[in-house]
Amino acid sequence: MIIVLKNNKTESEVASFKSYLEQKYGVGIHVSVGHDSVVLGLIGDTSAVDEDSVRAQDIVQEVKRVQEPYKKANRKFHPDDTVITLANGLTIGSGSLTLIAGPCSVESEEQVIEVAEAVKSVGAAVLRGGAFKPRTSPYAFQGMGADGLALLKKARTKTGLPIISEVMSASQLELFAEVDIIQVGARNMQNFELLKELGKQSRPIMLKRGLSSTIEELLMSAEYIMASGNEQIILCERGIRTFETKTRNTLDISAIPILKRLSHLPVFIDPSHASGLPWLVEPLSMAAVAAGADGLIIEVHNNPAKALCDGAQSLTPEMFASTVKNIKKIAEAMGKK
Amino acid sequence: MIIVLKNNKTESEVASFKSYLEQKYGVGIHVSVGHDSVVLGLIGDTSAVDEDSVRAQDIVQEVKRVQEPYKKANRKFHPDDTVITLANGLTIGSGSLTLIAGPCSVESEEQVIEVAEAVKSVGAAVLRGGAFKPRTSPYAFQGMGADGLALLKKARTKTGLPIISEVMSASQLELFAEVDIIQVGARNMQNFELLKELGKQSRPIMLKRGLSSTIEELLMSAEYIMASGNEQIILCERGIRTFETKTRNTLDISAIPILKRLSHLPVFIDPSHASGLPWLVEPLSMAAVAAGADGLIIEVHNNPAKALCDGAQSLTPEMFASTVKNIKKIAEAMGKK
Amino acid sequence: MIIVLKNNKTESEVASFKSYLEQKYGVGIHVSVGHDSVVLGLIGDTSAVDEDSVRAQDIVQEVKRVQEPYKKANRKFHPDDTVITLANGLTIGSGSLTLIAGPCSVESEEQVIEVAEAVKSVGAAVLRGGAFKPRTSPYAFQGMGADGLALLKKARTKTGLPIISEVMSASQLELFAEVDIIQVGARNMQNFELLKELGKQSRPIMLKRGLSSTIEELLMSAEYIMASGNEQIILCERGIRTFETKTRNTLDISAIPILKRLSHLPVFIDPSHASGLPWLVEPLSMAAVAAGADGLIIEVHNNPAKALCDGAQSLTPEMFASTVKNIKKIAEAMGKK
Amino acid sequence: MIIVLKNNKTESEVASFKSYLEQKYGVGIHVSVGHDSVVLGLIGDTSAVDEDSVRAQDIVQEVKRVQEPYKKANRKFHPDDTVITLANGLTIGSGSLTLIAGPCSVESEEQVIEVAEAVKSVGAAVLRGGAFKPRTSPYAFQGMGADGLALLKKARTKTGLPIISEVMSASQLELFAEVDIIQVGARNMQNFELLKELGKQSRPIMLKRGLSSTIEELLMSAEYIMASGNEQIILCERGIRTFETKTRNTLDISAIPILKRLSHLPVFIDPSHASGLPWLVEPLSMAAVAAGADGLIIEVHNNPAKALCDGAQSLTPEMFASTVKNIKKIAEAMGKK
Repeated sequence: MIIVLKNNKTESEVASFKSYLEQKYGVGIHVSVGHDSVVLGLIGDTSAVDEDSVRAQDIVQEVKRVQEPYKKANRKFHPDDTVITLANGLTIGSGSLTLIAGPCSVESEEQVIEVAEAVKSVGAAVLRGGAFKPRTSPYAFQGMGADGLALLKKARTKTGLPIISEVMSASQLELFAEVDIIQVGARNMQNFELLKELGKQSRPIMLKRGLSSTIEELLMSAEYIMASGNEQIILCERGIRTFETKTRNTLDISAIPILKRLSHLPVFIDPSHASGLPWLVEPLSMAAVAAGADGLIIEVHNNPAKALCDGAQSLTPEMFASTVKNIKKIAEAMGKK
Repeated sequence: MIIVLKNNKTESEVASFKSYLEQKYGVGIHVSVGHDSVVLGLIGDTSAVDEDSVRAQDIVQEVKRVQEPYKKANRKFHPDDTVITLANGLTIGSGSLTLIAGPCSVESEEQVIEVAEAVKSVGAAVLRGGAFKPRTSPYAFQGMGADGLALLKKARTKTGLPIISEVMSASQLELFAEVDIIQVGARNMQNFELLKELGKQSRPIMLKRGLSSTIEELLMSAEYIMASGNEQIILCERGIRTFETKTRNTLDISAIPILKRLSHLPVFIDPSHASGLPWLVEPLSMAAVAAGADGLIIEVHNNPAKALCDGAQSLTPEMFASTVKNIKKIAEAMGKK
Repeated sequence: MIIVLKNNKTESEVASFKSYLEQKYGVGIHVSVGHDSVVLGLIGDTSAVDEDSVRAQDIVQEVKRVQEPYKKANRKFHPDDTVITLANGLTIGSGSLTLIAGPCSVESEEQVIEVAEAVKSVGAAVLRGGAFKPRTSPYAFQGMGADGLALLKKARTKTGLPIISEVMSASQLELFAEVDIIQVGARNMQNFELLKELGKQSRPIMLKRGLSSTIEELLMSAEYIMASGNEQIILCERGIRTFETKTRNTLDISAIPILKRLSHLPVFIDPSHASGLPWLVEPLSMAAVAAGADGLIIEVHNNPAKALCDGAQSLTPEMFASTVKNIKKIAEAMGKK
Repeated sequence: MIIVLKNNKTESEVASFKSYLEQKYGVGIHVSVGHDSVVLGLIGDTSAVDEDSVRAQDIVQEVKRVQEPYKKANRKFHPDDTVITLANGLTIGSGSLTLIAGPCSVESEEQVIEVAEAVKSVGAAVLRGGAFKPRTSPYAFQGMGADGLALLKKARTKTGLPIISEVMSASQLELFAEVDIIQVGARNMQNFELLKELGKQSRPIMLKRGLSSTIEELLMSAEYIMASGNEQIILCERGIRTFETKTRNTLDISAIPILKRLSHLPVFIDPSHASGLPWLVEPLSMAAVAAGADGLIIEVHNNPAKALCDGAQSLTPEMFASTVKNIKKIAEAMGKK
């Protein structure tokens, strides 16, 4: 971290500020006196140094972090890609493209099994399904809860597909004991108490980027889970909030190559939530694969118009089959799968 | 809710869609056949109707919600201002201006009592102090936890000031049993499981707006708490995320008159987090009062430069005293206090 | 356009408002009286009706535009793709992928010819080069002006590549008489006086999306040019402004399929300005092609580190050659070129 | 400017980069070799150094500008407030609050004179009125043009109020010869060719902030005008584009104290365009004055419902009179006027 001091400060003010930083953060400091400014270079582990707090000191002109504040999620300290292996042997992040598909919310045994079989038949490797649903309105359908998780497990038994579902609080974690991948939704990306608990789990976590979270904040939230002991994390970009209103969110396609460069964790895209429109799922999926995504998570419903939740963006099994065909063309061009 | 259908649909398609909506949402529907479009007017309680889901139906051209999706938080159904009364008789939202002040995080008995006495002496009516701190980095100071709450209570005994502190998960609620106002931070505004639990509490809740949450989403989160039984809510605008980088967030000053018009709940402003800069606290506080805020929550630290957390934006007791003097001029011009 | 009136209005208020609208905008109006609201359906050409102005009337509850406000740019009224043919016979928007490449700004004859030959040899079909440069700072290099245009023409003579360059005001248009495609920069997307003048030109226009312009505003700006007589327009997405700071702008990849659906005009992507980072140009280009772009405009400089302007995001000719190779793989998978 | 180099670079690479910078930008450079990084401190005038361009060099890890890139607009080099004096002796920015009011667009002699007299009678000091209107749609009313300017001048003769109107291109400037203040609209804030021409004018310019322009970009646009010779500039914040949809734009109230601190130029607020809603004009005006604004520019129409343009946000003369009364209370509390 580089700290530029204001240019009207006395030597003793500089010395006093230097020793304050050394004591507060346990860092070494290299002072460099320039023509009209003094620059402090912090040496050692600066991840606990609060940039805003330093900037607020009266003596400080500017602060610039040189090292990323995340360590375990950082590719610098872990150059090889993280590969996640599920119970059935499926690997994620190993160079192939992983398709996750299924209904927004689990609604009935027939529904989830019908969708599971349909998506499996065209190449999906994991079944998604919401049991606990984060809804903006308290009056909207909140999901089937534990019963939904039970139906997902039935679908797993029937089809062999591993399952992924979203957890909304630490108190629900017990119910997720047999879920293959635990999903953290965008609205909980900075629910730090939940992240700490997920760090104690031994199952992979899919961490979705918050609606207005920066790429660095996403990596810091991954760091929370990793710092608590669980390093099996899948990052998922699902659209960010901007001024554009044609789509529900704006898919930040650049996040894929940036996350792959900064981190070693697998990167997925959720084109369904990013767009909120079924006809956009195919082109966004193709773009995501061309940009280097390790996988996609797509909503598929056997009857989108009647879906209890967010049918808006779900594909029919037929649309999904046709989309997968086009995704595969890009994946092959990329040398994947 | 008004639904405009595409203009190439047959009568039987329209009829089938109408009966689907009636059954799914239990609403009445008025069909109006125009020159080149059919418009459905939904009658009754449409708060459970998912706008995006309806928009996704193939038959639908456009959807427009006419009624707000929130009810208990809606001024239409509750024209009088909600006034919150604390244990010591202090009223919030009754036409006076309430000042809440205190350190970002509780650090020691001396610190919190010194600050409490200082802010009380110039007019603060409630003491704020963080015990559990939501930090972007897992390596940053996470707060004193239960010990911090104990010190806040000591300060209350000493000064008589009611206390407010932030809760980060439902499992911590037990520890907040004697806290006068429970704060929900911006990052937890859509932690729906937490909101439901807060609905079962009998103490007032200060609900902070999320960094990228719309005003309507803030009111829907208030509705979550109210729908679960707790109607004592203070709304707090604390800056939203925009492209501007001079301030940490952009204070949405318009939110004050808009929230006061749409809802009956008291509206506070947090100028410290909105700006992230101590010298901006005074002008933003004055603007907030002039725009009609019911109160302010301001960070004050006896030694901002040495604060363990976010000293960046804290005022010294001296700066706070001077700021309060200027705030009072505006409050008087507004006929407050 | 659908106008929902407030539900406490008298019949004569409704009648008076109806006749006011009919007279002001020359539209027909269908009144539909619902259970607790009156809905007006405007019939005819509503493109001149100002939505905000209507919404501001005291009698109005909500307004919803059903028809797009653009006509000539609208695919509904022009279902076939617009194909643009340059003087040398090159077609744009006809199903093939068009690569435009060249330096950010023209700096010397050697530079522009060296780059032109390099990009032509690996597949670029048009040469780009800035002569008039929009710079945030008045102290930054403002481009070579007319001399720069002369050098571009020399490069065209030498290589046979058509040329594109950015115009910054109507008074410069005379100098652009022999430029094959005239570019309008993002900052001038709503310079309406310039747009009107461009409508009188007989050459194709590349219209770049403004940093914070919606997709609809981009189409309305295209409409300005088309309404003045010039229908040869290429739309170009070049990144929008969001809160994310890792990239200079956020490439809105969804804009490609949306613009292709709403309009018949060709859609290009500028991955250089969207990212501001040379290593992001390749993955963003590949994503753009996979999402259906008709072409790309890429900055290439023979010595990016010494570029007088924005070298930051320029590729070397070698990087460009390697990028084109990967772009072609995706283009082939898409059945293009 | 501080440039941090990557830590794996050789001495000769550093030396070569140093001499490249010295030659390209004519700056002095102080090299400071730290524990694990080399930091270059640029000395002298760095306003022409392109930060992005430097960041793009392979050798560079990070760049941080220490000095603001604007000079003439910078309070550091011009500590005293700029006071603008109009022909009639009215001073702007001298500690009093200046009210500018009038119709969005000039529509008729009766209209503009009626409004002018009404706003003058309650305290407006300048008359605003649009003659050339920037409209998103080519089919919307584009203003009366030269005839509109003539009517404004008639109103000036009748009432004695100086006039302000918006120019949309340099070719219109001749028509503005007798206009007291020339306004640059938000969409033209970065129309650099226009800014350069305005620098040659001898009349004050009101420069409005672009919808997605940063505060620094606003100051850089002011710098364009000042660098060309005209230092009489009024800055105007009129709302920025964010994700919030309740208001047309989000008024960035913090911009007032920030601009006043960074620059010596007067700062105005346009509450009409910032909100797009007439009932928000009063609270936003009061907030702006409390935050330190030097003036307000407010839309007033004698018949908002019938306005040819943007009636949506206009006040009636009665509403304006009542708003001024409340604004004055705040101005008095602030010791203004």
